Amino acid sequence: MTPSLIIVGTVALDDVKTPFGQVKNALGGSAFFAGISASYWTNVGVMAIVGPDYPSRGFETMKDRGIDVAGIEVSKEPSFHWSGEYGFDLSSAKTLKTDLNCLLSFNPDIAGVYPSVHTLFLANIDPEIQKKVIDDLPARPEIIALDTMNFWIENKREALLDVLGLVDILTINEGEARMLSGESNLISAARTISAMGPQILIIKRGEYGAMVFNRGKIFLSPAYPLESLKDPTGAGDSFAGGFLGYMASEGGKDDDTLRRGIIVGSVMASFCVSEFSSAGMENLSPLALEARLCEFSEQTNYRPVSPVFRMLGG
Amino acid sequence: MTPSLIIVGTVALDDVKTPFGQVKNALGGSAFFAGISASYWTNVGVMAIVGPDYPSRGFETMKDRGIDVAGIEVSKEPSFHWSGEYGFDLSSAKTLKTDLNCLLSFNPDIAGVYPSVHTLFLANIDPEIQKKVIDDLPARPEIIALDTMNFWIENKREALLDVLGLVDILTINEGEARMLSGESNLISAARTISAMGPQILIIKRGEYGAMVFNRGKIFLSPAYPLESLKDPTGAGDSFAGGFLGYMASEGGKDDDTLRRGIIVGSVMASFCVSEFSSAGMENLSPLALEARLCEFSEQTNYRPVSPVFRMLGG
Repeated sequence: MTPSLIIVGTVALDDVKTPFGQVKNALGGSAFFAGISASYWTNVGVMAIVGPDYPSRGFETMKDRGIDVAGIEVSKEPSFHWSGEYGFDLSSAKTLKTDLNCLLSFNPDIAGVYPSVHTLFLANIDPEIQKKVIDDLPARPEIIALDTMNFWIENKREALLDVLGLVDILTINEGEARMLSGESNLISAARTISAMGPQILIIKRGEYGAMVFNRGKIFLSPAYPLESLKDPTGAGDSFAGGFLGYMASEGGKDDDTLRRGIIVGSVMASFCVSEFSSAGMENLSPLALEARLCEFSEQTNYRPVSPVFRMLGG
Repeated sequence: MTPSLIIVGTVALDDVKTPFGQVKNALGGSAFFAGISASYWTNVGVMAIVGPDYPSRGFETMKDRGIDVAGIEVSKEPSFHWSGEYGFDLSSAKTLKTDLNCLLSFNPDIAGVYPSVHTLFLANIDPEIQKKVIDDLPARPEIIALDTMNFWIENKREALLDVLGLVDILTINEGEARMLSGESNLISAARTISAMGPQILIIKRGEYGAMVFNRGKIFLSPAYPLESLKDPTGAGDSFAGGFLGYMASEGGKDDDTLRRGIIVGSVMASFCVSEFSSAGMENLSPLALEARLCEFSEQTNYRPVSPVFRMLGG
């Protein structure tokens, strides 16, 4: 059976240092985090490239979550390797080293592995590859979502604009939305970016949550507040994975489903950042998910204020 | 009739420059902004001190909103005058000049003007004055809320801790919460600050909204997103004013009322920052308020996700 969500991106090894510890050769990568997160909500296939050094525990972690790894190519070059460090506020990573290695020859044959795709997530990767994946598919997926980063906005703007014209949903962080649009105000930025193609724009604001623009409608979601946060690596990817896993499982992209997807994504990201690498997301029980979704719902709920009948004159 | 909300703080003249314009001798001050905002929700009295230079349009603006100005003393010293400038992102003010002037001799006789107070808001001002106001009242108000700023946390910590032990609600911004508590994580910070006295802690996060801690319960509110924002001066004060005006009018401090108060405060702040000084808050119709409250409610609403029956195994 073809998985309902196909994620194309990176599967990597990470060296990460935060004020709460450090790991070396930890499992990481945009498609890896998104895949683990999405796997709680729908059937997932991951397409990526790794090297002969990629540990079997990486494949096992994905398979344990029911992820189809048939689309992960093992090349002769070493795995993509990222090293980064976070300061005390954990708000942004300082990249120490990026070894692209096998990623330089990544040329996913999506049509060969998954000829028919319902929901496609093009996780953060070269926009030329993202476009090729869409072009290669014999039929357009129901939902195409794309994530990108400052590096591509600065260095491959034309290629990024090309692929943006083909997608339904863009996930992007606040600073990147400003960079891509040239607008400092996020509502103006959203209007400019939607004109580039994506009808749904999800602006990620880290610990402050997300701002969603869907054809003129705005949805504001806070982030689930954590007292203990160890490693923000993968937060955005697991947010997108949870969100799209939920969307794929619901089979629609109406505003109602979209909003609940954002809440699911926020909750998945909160599990991700609570431990290093994917440890916080590997063994979640339905009860643990339910409990956090309930708690988050209680933290964001209120009865609408209806002022007219109780306001003073004037 | 005694107003149900008494606000003690500053009434000032401001010189403000933002990328969208500038004003000189504009109406400002913590009690002024809070008062105008609260006046849409309850009967308000303002206690402050001004100089002979304070323009009659200041008093008229307050009286037009039904605010009782009997507690505003006119001294012989010039009015408190603040000059500040905001950069392109409008996120924080750079203070260019602070002339305390008459504020140095502010000694409000609250018992003489309002011997019985239901809801008391001690807006940003010297914590020694804040404490004296509480001490002077023959009976404790139902609700005492307090706002403060980094200057008092750094320079009058002991006096601030003294008054914090006497209040129900503290409004404070994110950075100040970290400074006051010595904790970088906001949940930890909230626990530390609640142990200092206030059972309800409202952490203001500017354009990101507010995080409310009420005896172990958390409420997360986004801020209303604006495309055009001209002058952030008074945002926090009008937030607190709207919030407390609503609380005072409802007469309670249960969690349900508190949450709706936060929403009201957010909406009032959004009107405040849309124009310079208090211009955006001076002539709001019930319909304009209702429309924005509705819109904000639509922007934050979602149906809870109930995952257990639809999740995949594992």
